[in-house]
Amino acid sequence: MKTMEWRDKGLDLLDQTGLPQAVRYIRCTSAEDVADAIRTMKVRGAPAIGAAAAYGLVLGTISLECGEQAEFIRETEKTANMLGSTRPTAVNLFWALERMVKAARMAGVEKPAEIKELLLKEANNIFREDLEMNKKIGMYGNKLVPNKAGILTHCNAGALATAGYGTALGVIRAAHEQGKEIHVYADETRPLLQGARLTAWELMQDSIPVTLITDNMAGYVMKKGLINLAVVGADRITANGDVANKIGTYTVAVLCKEHGIPFYVAAPGSTIDMGLESGEDIIIEERNPEEVTGIAGHLTAPEGVRVLNPAFDVTPNSLVTAIITDRGIIRPPYKDNLKKHYNKEGNNGLYNKGYKACTVRETKNRLGKGTHAGSE
Amino acid sequence: MKTMEWRDKGLDLLDQTGLPQAVRYIRCTSAEDVADAIRTMKVRGAPAIGAAAAYGLVLGTISLECGEQAEFIRETEKTANMLGSTRPTAVNLFWALERMVKAARMAGVEKPAEIKELLLKEANNIFREDLEMNKKIGMYGNKLVPNKAGILTHCNAGALATAGYGTALGVIRAAHEQGKEIHVYADETRPLLQGARLTAWELMQDSIPVTLITDNMAGYVMKKGLINLAVVGADRITANGDVANKIGTYTVAVLCKEHGIPFYVAAPGSTIDMGLESGEDIIIEERNPEEVTGIAGHLTAPEGVRVLNPAFDVTPNSLVTAIITDRGIIRPPYKDNLKKHYNKEGNNGLYNKGYKACTVRETKNRLGKGTHAGSE
Repeated sequence: MKTMEWRDKGLDLLDQTGLPQAVRYIRCTSAEDVADAIRTMKVRGAPAIGAAAAYGLVLGTISLECGEQAEFIRETEKTANMLGSTRPTAVNLFWALERMVKAARMAGVEKPAEIKELLLKEANNIFREDLEMNKKIGMYGNKLVPNKAGILTHCNAGALATAGYGTALGVIRAAHEQGKEIHVYADETRPLLQGARLTAWELMQDSIPVTLITDNMAGYVMKKGLINLAVVGADRITANGDVANKIGTYTVAVLCKEHGIPFYVAAPGSTIDMGLESGEDIIIEERNPEEVTGIAGHLTAPEGVRVLNPAFDVTPNSLVTAIITDRGIIRPPYKDNLKKHYNKEGNNGLYNKGYKACTVRETKNRLGKGTHAGSE
Repeated sequence: MKTMEWRDKGLDLLDQTGLPQAVRYIRCTSAEDVADAIRTMKVRGAPAIGAAAAYGLVLGTISLECGEQAEFIRETEKTANMLGSTRPTAVNLFWALERMVKAARMAGVEKPAEIKELLLKEANNIFREDLEMNKKIGMYGNKLVPNKAGILTHCNAGALATAGYGTALGVIRAAHEQGKEIHVYADETRPLLQGARLTAWELMQDSIPVTLITDNMAGYVMKKGLINLAVVGADRITANGDVANKIGTYTVAVLCKEHGIPFYVAAPGSTIDMGLESGEDIIIEERNPEEVTGIAGHLTAPEGVRVLNPAFDVTPNSLVTAIITDRGIIRPPYKDNLKKHYNKEGNNGLYNKGYKACTVRETKNRLGKGTHAGSE
């Protein structure tokens, strides 16, 4: 099962809104096709969105007939801005688009045909690098998984959220590949049910034993002694080791503390934002109330009820046992140990400042420093 | 809004499966009508089921033409057993039916017509006493609610689960009636969404400010400082103060501990089972997997996925700040303080032994000792 595949001047995208009932691919042959797929969440998960947007930019420039470089770049930026307007929070989207536009600008060639080639190469690199980072996360994380472990996970930080293999599910995949007899408990993850729809499905595809539970059963399964560790993805990790991730992650971490269960966060280094001191600096996106008042279009709550719908919560570093990155396992004190692996030139608040790709011409190359996230 | 009403030789039952979209009453004119309503969860919540079953027995005997007492009682027992087979766990069902059959047996009159009158009187008593107990719980519980309190609740321990007023929601109602500017945060309570469908609706009917959240947002709202106390109902409280209640209650209690927020349980004394030493003795009912894999008939998970679906969890006494009963507020140490208010003749494991009303002829009068519960 592939989340996306570049094939014959088009992008095949697995339509995640149809999962798990329908496994269907949509064919994108224009930047608009890709923008629509991101907007309607046919593709979701920050790294997956980033890679899709990069290919979207390739599609947007593929048919440009303009003869000179300056004009070509202007058109490329225009398309990038259009793609960047599809989702407000996924930093990886802006990061990937910026990286693409930068590649075009720095091409050092005059012929658009050559720049087009460079753009496809860059999109392929973004895709391939994400996959490689996930494999490394899996390799390191596997060391933390005992044989016969019961593993709790939340949301979908899997192959479906990335170029492949996944972050939290990458750790689980690696342990399974090593022959460990693990059993995964997947929180269904309300409101959008990524755990039920995507994680359970993805693990079943790979024959990894999984049991689906509602979010409020996590405490029950821990108290029953069924869980040996929890592993989740991240949307952003600040310099002190605080972790922003899908709503409900914080509750899982508190439950782990109560039961003496290790709580791990799996994320590529690019998720670590050394420019933000702590999780308190992160603005939490509030999403559409209809996600809470209904399920799959079916209204389940009284009309007009007041609703809270934060998309993320912040887990304080004190609850995080270790962060599993593509550069190794990082343990507390995070402030010191994150610094050893990641320099100061992190995201620098990209996420909070409503940053848009290609609108700032003079930014430094952020290659590898955007937010890769393991969930929405 | 009334959960049920006896009127003109029939029982009007609010069909809770249609809530909150449709407020419709069904008219029950036979014991079978009531049995069907319980089985299909048109009426739910242990005390509400108990009261409905009592009226069901009235309906089942109302048209009996048998001339002598012994035959009348045999028929009454038969109908009670039929009604008792509708739901396996709600102890209040068995308790109410036993109380009714006992009333018939001890009638001391020979004429079925007079026994019929006594049965209706007893059903009315069961209904009225439940309402009165809830009012007392509200009166005591109100003392624990500061003005402008943010209150978290889980599932529906409200008027809809009882003869009226509610247990946990009785406390909230009382505080609201006293003019306190409270704000309720209602966990939606997966899998059956009693919080979204019933609690939010019930509170909105009474103009009590309520915000609906998914279960996994409880930690978030606590961390934001929005919650001053949590109050929930109970399905059974053991002699040491352990509390069995709707799945997810335990997680709420753990979150309260982490945030230093008081966690209260509101329940009538009849919920307290002095015959069970601790929550470890309680068998947890495992329900239909389809409740987890879908919502309102809409499949949201992969077909064939393994599922856990415990209906309840047990919150250890160490996490319970106080138990609000109709006899006052009980605080730790529960083993001693529960004994002061409730004698040793409690439920005696009724819940776990698969006890059925009317099958044991020689049991003592359990009046007031069955399990009144605030949830399913």
